[in-house]
Amino acid sequence: MKKLIALYKVPKDPEAFMERYRSGHLPLVDKIPNLIRTELTLIDRTLMGEPGNYLLAEMYFENDAFKDAMQSPENAAAGGDLAKFAGGLVTIMIGSIVP
Amino acid sequence: MKKLIALYKVPKDPEAFMERYRSGHLPLVDKIPNLIRTELTLIDRTLMGEPGNYLLAEMYFENDAFKDAMQSPENAAAGGDLAKFAGGLVTIMIGSIVP
Repeated sequence: MKKLIALYKVPKDPEAFMERYRSGHLPLVDKIPNLIRTELTLIDRTLMGEPGNYLLAEMYFENDAFKDAMQSPENAAAGGDLAKFAGGLVTIMIGSIVP
Repeated sequence: MKKLIALYKVPKDPEAFMERYRSGHLPLVDKIPNLIRTELTLIDRTLMGEPGNYLLAEMYFENDAFKDAMQSPENAAAGGDLAKFAGGLVTIMIGSIVP
């Protein structure tokens, strides 16, 4: 299985960020074809290493449906939206879940 | 639900790192009481933001069992092992899954 992983740093206004994320960005993410589910994790503490992360968003796809999802206009729209509210805050990674 | 999240940067020798991770570290992680499951994700690419991540390890716990897990000697042993093979490579975070 594949994951699209978004790791956001602590925003200046976390409450406003989450409101914008939930009402503006997440609906665009939900439209990405072949998306199985999204898991959101709020970072409570950093115990070791680099501090400053706020939110981890993980979007799950089947392996054979991932390429189509990434190449979809819906994914481009979600990606384009990131720059509007999370520019400089977000790292986007593609990962493969180890079976 | 709670997650203990470990994000590892690309090691000098990824193959040796994974061998050490699987044979040495993961058995210690598996002993942490109340651990529900561990999800390992190998990072294939970074599309935006900070590059250089290699492995995301996520350990799942029920909310009311998390404190005991973190305070266990088994967790201390797993944490102590990190310094032996992943010092300077790993960021450890505690997160709460958004329901």
